[in-house]
Amino acid sequence: MDHHHHEQGSKDIESMEGAWRSIERNESSFYENEKESESAREPLLRKRTLNTTSQIAIVGANVCPIESLDYEIAENDLFKQDWRSRKKVQIFQYIVLKWTLALLIGLATGFVGFFNNLAVENIAGFKLLLTSTLMLEHRYITAFLTYGGINVVLAAASAALCAYVAPAAAGSGIPEVKAYLNGVDAYSILAPSTLFVKIFGSIGGVSAGFVLGKEGPMVHTGACIANLLGQGGSRKYHLTWTWLRYFKNDRDRRDLITCGSAAGVAAAFRAPVGGVLFALEEAASWWRSALLWRTFFTTAVVAVVLRSLIQYCRGGNCGLFGKGGLIMFDVSSSISTYSTADLIAIVFLGIFGGVFGAIFNYLVDRILRTYSFINDKGAPSKILLTITISILTSCCSYGLPWLASCTPCPADLHEQCPTIGRSGNFKNFQCPPGHYNDLASLFLNTNDDAIRNLFSGGTDNEFCISTLFIFFIAVYCLGLVTYGIAIPSGLFIPVILSGATYGRIIGTLLGPVSDLDPGLFAVLGAAAFLGGTMRMTVSVCVILLELTNDLLMLPLVMLVLLISKTVADSFNKGVYDQIVKMKGLPFMEAHAEPYMRNLVAGDVVSAPLISFSGVEKVGDIVLALRLTGHNGFPVIDEPPFSDAPELVGLVLRSHLLVLLKGKRFTKERARTGAGEVFQRFGAFDFAKAGLGKGLKLEDLNILQEEMDMFVDLHPITNRSPYTVVETMSLAKAAVLFRELGLRHLCVVPKTPGRPPIVGILTRHDFMPEHILGLFPHLHSHK
Amino acid sequence: MDHHHHEQGSKDIESMEGAWRSIERNESSFYENEKESESAREPLLRKRTLNTTSQIAIVGANVCPIESLDYEIAENDLFKQDWRSRKKVQIFQYIVLKWTLALLIGLATGFVGFFNNLAVENIAGFKLLLTSTLMLEHRYITAFLTYGGINVVLAAASAALCAYVAPAAAGSGIPEVKAYLNGVDAYSILAPSTLFVKIFGSIGGVSAGFVLGKEGPMVHTGACIANLLGQGGSRKYHLTWTWLRYFKNDRDRRDLITCGSAAGVAAAFRAPVGGVLFALEEAASWWRSALLWRTFFTTAVVAVVLRSLIQYCRGGNCGLFGKGGLIMFDVSSSISTYSTADLIAIVFLGIFGGVFGAIFNYLVDRILRTYSFINDKGAPSKILLTITISILTSCCSYGLPWLASCTPCPADLHEQCPTIGRSGNFKNFQCPPGHYNDLASLFLNTNDDAIRNLFSGGTDNEFCISTLFIFFIAVYCLGLVTYGIAIPSGLFIPVILSGATYGRIIGTLLGPVSDLDPGLFAVLGAAAFLGGTMRMTVSVCVILLELTNDLLMLPLVMLVLLISKTVADSFNKGVYDQIVKMKGLPFMEAHAEPYMRNLVAGDVVSAPLISFSGVEKVGDIVLALRLTGHNGFPVIDEPPFSDAPELVGLVLRSHLLVLLKGKRFTKERARTGAGEVFQRFGAFDFAKAGLGKGLKLEDLNILQEEMDMFVDLHPITNRSPYTVVETMSLAKAAVLFRELGLRHLCVVPKTPGRPPIVGILTRHDFMPEHILGLFPHLHSHK
Repeated sequence: MDHHHHEQGSKDIESMEGAWRSIERNESSFYENEKESESAREPLLRKRTLNTTSQIAIVGANVCPIESLDYEIAENDLFKQDWRSRKKVQIFQYIVLKWTLALLIGLATGFVGFFNNLAVENIAGFKLLLTSTLMLEHRYITAFLTYGGINVVLAAASAALCAYVAPAAAGSGIPEVKAYLNGVDAYSILAPSTLFVKIFGSIGGVSAGFVLGKEGPMVHTGACIANLLGQGGSRKYHLTWTWLRYFKNDRDRRDLITCGSAAGVAAAFRAPVGGVLFALEEAASWWRSALLWRTFFTTAVVAVVLRSLIQYCRGGNCGLFGKGGLIMFDVSSSISTYSTADLIAIVFLGIFGGVFGAIFNYLVDRILRTYSFINDKGAPSKILLTITISILTSCCSYGLPWLASCTPCPADLHEQCPTIGRSGNFKNFQCPPGHYNDLASLFLNTNDDAIRNLFSGGTDNEFCISTLFIFFIAVYCLGLVTYGIAIPSGLFIPVILSGATYGRIIGTLLGPVSDLDPGLFAVLGAAAFLGGTMRMTVSVCVILLELTNDLLMLPLVMLVLLISKTVADSFNKGVYDQIVKMKGLPFMEAHAEPYMRNLVAGDVVSAPLISFSGVEKVGDIVLALRLTGHNGFPVIDEPPFSDAPELVGLVLRSHLLVLLKGKRFTKERARTGAGEVFQRFGAFDFAKAGLGKGLKLEDLNILQEEMDMFVDLHPITNRSPYTVVETMSLAKAAVLFRELGLRHLCVVPKTPGRPPIVGILTRHDFMPEHILGLFPHLHSHK
Repeated sequence: MDHHHHEQGSKDIESMEGAWRSIERNESSFYENEKESESAREPLLRKRTLNTTSQIAIVGANVCPIESLDYEIAENDLFKQDWRSRKKVQIFQYIVLKWTLALLIGLATGFVGFFNNLAVENIAGFKLLLTSTLMLEHRYITAFLTYGGINVVLAAASAALCAYVAPAAAGSGIPEVKAYLNGVDAYSILAPSTLFVKIFGSIGGVSAGFVLGKEGPMVHTGACIANLLGQGGSRKYHLTWTWLRYFKNDRDRRDLITCGSAAGVAAAFRAPVGGVLFALEEAASWWRSALLWRTFFTTAVVAVVLRSLIQYCRGGNCGLFGKGGLIMFDVSSSISTYSTADLIAIVFLGIFGGVFGAIFNYLVDRILRTYSFINDKGAPSKILLTITISILTSCCSYGLPWLASCTPCPADLHEQCPTIGRSGNFKNFQCPPGHYNDLASLFLNTNDDAIRNLFSGGTDNEFCISTLFIFFIAVYCLGLVTYGIAIPSGLFIPVILSGATYGRIIGTLLGPVSDLDPGLFAVLGAAAFLGGTMRMTVSVCVILLELTNDLLMLPLVMLVLLISKTVADSFNKGVYDQIVKMKGLPFMEAHAEPYMRNLVAGDVVSAPLISFSGVEKVGDIVLALRLTGHNGFPVIDEPPFSDAPELVGLVLRSHLLVLLKGKRFTKERARTGAGEVFQRFGAFDFAKAGLGKGLKLEDLNILQEEMDMFVDLHPITNRSPYTVVETMSLAKAAVLFRELGLRHLCVVPKTPGRPPIVGILTRHDFMPEHILGLFPHLHSHK
C-alpha cells in the first residue's frame, strides 16, 4: 500500500497512520473555515455536519449515510470467466425474469394503488358521513369535535408510524427516487419498512383531511415495490433466489425502479402514458428505448389491474368506494372556438401561474428549513408538529365554510341538491333544506372530490367568487405548511387544488366576456400551477389529458404550461430539484456548470490517494479499509511484476471484503493467478448486495498471522476502468462521468515517467459545494 | 508526420508513399477475400463497392459519401479563448435564437404540412370528382383512362423530380433522419433541393393514388426545414448570420433536427404529443430533458398553426379541402364493457398482426433489393418503374371494385347515400341509384378517407367480408411494391390501411359473438400492424389516441401493441432499422454486441496510424490530407519539445485546412504559440460547416516553397480527447463512444515506454461487418 507521493520503499503502517492523522487535521480546519459562509440557500446538511462533500443526506428529516451507485461493468477476470461460461439458458432465464418482474411490479403497484384508494374512500367517507349526519341534527360542536378528533387521531397515527418505524417515508419521496435513479443510494429509502409506512402513512394522512396527495407517495411506493421484488423478498425462497442473482447489480436495479416509479404514477392518476412520461421527464437520469418499452408494459398492467378492480367495485362490493375513487375527471366540456381575448386571458393565466408557482417553491423551501429544526428534536416533536397542523387544517375546513352564505339549489340538475351521500357538488352544511354551502362543498370533501367539483363544466355559477378566493388562500397556505410534516405527503394534489381554484376564479371573473367554461379554466389553472412548481411539461400535459379525458384542450394546456414554466424558471428551480439539493443528495446534473470549463480534472481530485500493489499484504488492505471510507482503490503493478509502475486497474471495497473473507492467502509475494480464485468463488459471490446488506469490515475475522501474508488482487481488479488525463477540463470529465453512470473515474498523468495514476474522481468531487469550496474565486464567475 | 511503427528518424515522403501503396494492396486483397461471404441479408453496398467499413451509403437509390458527426467539444486553445471571452449578451443571443428557431421550425413545418394536405385534397379530389362524373354518365372506359392517365402523369412528374433533382428525397426519409440523429451525415439528405422535391414529390405521389403516405416524408421535410433554418438560409442575410454562428456545430444541429422531425410527425398526424414521443422513441439517439421541452414547444406551435389554418378553411376558402383534410378520425364509439372472449380475440389479433408485420418487413427488404438493381440503371428506368407501379395501382383500384356487388343503401343514415361529393362512405361506382359499391368506397378514395371509413363506428354491415378480403390483399401487396420506387413514400399509411382492414375483417367475423364495434377492431388492427412493422410502442399508442380522440381504448391498444411487437421481434428487426442497415448507414446501436466482450479495443484499430508532430512541416500535412480520408490525426510532441514522446491531442482535418489556408508558416521548427493564431483567426473561423460546405484540399493554394516551412499545430489541437486503454474490452469502448457521441476515440497503450498512441477508433471500427470481417470466427459466437 502506497501513498503515491511517497517513495517506493517506505510503506510502514506507522507513516501511513501519521499521514492520515494529518489529513484529518487538515480536514477539520478546512471545515472550520467553511463555517462562515453559511447562507439560507445552502443544503441543510452543511450546518449540521460540516461535511462539504455530502457523504450523508437528510432522508425524511433524518440524517443517513449515502452511497453512490455504479453502472460501470467491472471487467475483471471473474466477470470475463462468467461471461464466457454464460449459457443460452441463462440468457433466457434473464429475459423471462426481466419481464416477469415488470409484470409483478405492475400487478403489485396496481393492487396497492387500488387498496390505498379503497381505504381512503372508506375512512374519509365514514368520517365525512358522520360529520354531516351530526350537522343535520344541528349538533355543530359535536360535529366539529368528531371531525377534528378523527383527523387528529389519523394524523398522529401516521406521524408515529413515520417517526418511529421509517423516517425515510416522510414527504413526497419523488426527490429520493429521482436521486436514486441519478445514482445516489441513501440508506433505507427503498427498504421494506419504508414501503409499509409509505402505504399506511399515506392512507392515514390523506384520510385525515390534510391538504396533501397520495401521488408522490405512490411513486415512492412503486419504487419500493420494484426494489423489494428485485431482491426476491427474502433469502428464504431459494427457487427464485438463484434466478434473481442476475439482478444483483445497480444497473438492473435502476431499470426495475424506473419501471416502479412509472407504475406508481400510472396507479395514482390512472394515467399509463403519463406514468411513462413522468419517469422519463422527471425521475430517470438515464434512458434507452428498450426501457421505454418495459416501462410501458408495466404501466399497461397497472391500467388493466385498476380497470378490473374498479369494475368489480361497481357491483357495490367496496363499501363507500363509489365513483369518487381514483381521480378521473371526465370534463368533456365541448370547447367552443376561442377568441383572441380568451387567448390573452390564457396567456395571463400562465404568467401568473408561473409567478405563484415560483413563490410556492420559495416558501416550501423556507418552511422546510424551519421545520427541520423542529423535526430534529426527535420523534415526539415530529408528532406534535403534525397534530398542530392537523388541528389547524380541521379548523380551516370546518370553520371557514361558516363565512359563506347559503345558495339556493339551481333548478335544472341531474344530481341531488343538497347532497345526501358522501361526495357531491352540493354540501348542505348549516343551510336550510333546498340550499347548499358552496365553500363546504370544497372543504368538507376529499381533495379528489374538491378537484372534481372545480373541474366540472356547465356549472358556471355554482361557486361564488368570494368562496373561491377564501378557498384559494386557505389551500395555498395549508399546502405550504403541510409539506414537511412527518407523514407521506405528495405535492401534486395541493398544487392542482390551488391551481384549479385560481383558474376557476379567473374563469368566473371572465364569465361575462368569455365563451369558455369556468371548468376549463380550472384545468388550465391547474396546468399553470403544475408547470410553475414542478417544471414538467410533457408529462403533466399527458397526465392532465388522461385525467380529464379531453384531447381537444391539448393546445391550450401546452400553451399555459410553456408560459408558466418559462416564467417560473426565471425565478428559481423546480420544487423537486430544490428538495434534492436541500437534502444534500449529490445529484449530478445533465449539463456541466460553466465554471467547470476553467478547471481541469487534476484540480479537484482528492489527495492523498491510497493504492495497492498487484499482490498486497493483507494487513495493509485491512488497514486501508478501516482508515478510509473509499469504495475504490487503484491497483499498481511494480517492478518485480512489471517493467515500470503500471496501472492494473481499480478494485472495489466490496470485492476486497469478499476476497479477504475467502482467506486464500499466500506466505510469499507471488501471483497466484485467476484459477485459484475461481476454485473458491463463483461469479455471483461478488455480485453487489443492496445498500447495507453486503459484507462489512467487522464481519471479517482475520488472524494476526494472516495479516503478514499476501493476496493476489489481479483476479478481482477491473482491468479497464474509464480514465481521463489530468489536463482534461472538468466539464468534459463531468460529462463522461454522468453519461456513463460511473462511480469512480481514474485520473492519469499527462506526461510519462510519473506514478501511473494521479487520483480518483467520485461523484462528490463534481459537486458545486466541493469545487467552490476549493476555488472560492469561482463564485464570481458563476 | 510519422507512422508510429517507423523509427523516429525516417520521415521522408517516399517511404510514406511506399507504405501507403502497400496498405492499398492489403486492402484490396482484403476486400477480395470478402467477396465470397455475400448473402441476401447483407448491406447492399458491400456488393457494389467492396467497402466493408461503409464510408459511403445508399441514399435514395444513389450512392453517396457519408460523414460521421462529432458531438465532442474540441477543447483547443481557440475554444478556451472563446469560452473565456464569451459575454453575457452572447449567451442571451444564443438562448433567444434557440427558441426563435424552434418557433420558426414549428411555424414552417405547420405551414408546409397544411399546404401538403391542401394540395393533395384538391388534386386528388379533382381527379376523383372527374372520374365519378364520367362514371355517372356510364363512360367507364373514358373514366378509367382519365383516372389512370392523371395518376401516371402525377407519378411520372414526381419520379422525374426525384430522379433528376434530388435522389435523396425518394423513400420515407425516416431511416436517414434516424441515422443523422445517430451521428451519420450522408451528402444532401438534408439539402434544400431534397426539401423541395420531398414536398412536391410527396404531393404528386399521394395525389397519384399510390398506396403510400405523406407521414414519413413529413418527418424528413421537418428535418430539412430545421437544417435550412439553422443554416440561416444563405450567406446573403448578414444580419442573422452573425447570430447563427452559434449553431455551426453538430450538437446544436442535432437538436434542431430532432425538433424538426418531431414537428413533422406533429404536422402529419396533428398529434403534438405523439410527435414528441416519436422523436424520442424512434428518431433520436441522444436525449435530455431540456430538449424534450424545446421539442414540445415546436410541436405545440405546429398544432396551433394547423388549427388556425383549418379554422380558416372551414369558411370554404380552400377549394375541395373539406373535412377530409388532415387525418383526424373521431371514432368515439362508446366502448361497452368487453368480455373475456373479446380479450382472447384481441390477443389473437395482436399475434397475427405481429406475424403479418414481420412478413411485411421481410418482403419490403427483398423487394427493395430487387428494385435497387432497376434503380441502379439510371433515371429513366426509375421513372419507368414508377409508371409501371402506377398503372398497376390504377388497374387494381379501378378494376377490383367491379368484383363487388351493389349493396342497397341502409335506411337510417345521417349522410348521403350514394355519396355525391368527393369523400364519403358510399361510392356509387357502377351501381344503380340508391345502391353503393363498398369496395369502390375504399379504393376510389384518398387513403385518409379509406382509413376513416374503416375506422368508422356504428356501421357494422357497411362492408361485406369478401370486399374486405379483396381490399386487404390488394393493399398489403400494393404497399409492398410501392415502397422503394423513386418518389417520397411513407410507410405509415399502407400499414395503417392494411392493418385497419385486417382488424375490420376480424371484427366483422366476430360480429355475432362480440359486443365490440368493427370500427374499434379496425383501430386495434392498425395498432397491431404498426407494432409489427415499426416496433414502436408508446409513440404509436399516443399517435393513435390523438388520431382517434378516444382515450378509453388505451389499455386495449397497449395490449395489442405489446403482443404484436413481441411476436414480430422474434422474427426480424423493425422496418426502419432494416432499411438503415441495408443502405449501409453505419448506425451505432445503443447496446454493444455480445461478441464485443471477447475483443479489446486494440484488436480493431485500423493500422497504420498517421500522426503529426506538434510543429509539423506543411508539405507533410498536405500529403497526409491528400493521401488519407482521415478526419482526425493525433499530434505527438517529441524530444526537442518534451522529455519523451507525448500525446498532445487530436487535430481535425477541417481545422487543419483552415489553418493552412491562413498561411502563418515559419521557416524554423519552432512553437509560435496561440497568440499568433488568435491574431489571424476568430473562434468561429473554425466552426464546423455543413457537410460538403467546408474548405476542401483543392481550395488551398500552397506554394512550393511553403511546403518546406513549418506550422505550429498546438493552438488548434484538442488537448484532451477521450481515450481508452488498448486492453479495454471493445464493448466498454463502444458504450463510451456511443454515449458521448464521439467521432474519434484515441486508444493509448497499456504499458509505458511505447509510442503514446496506438490508434484511433472511429464509428466504422465498431460496425459488425468490420469486426466480423477481421475476426470471422466470432460468427459462431454471435
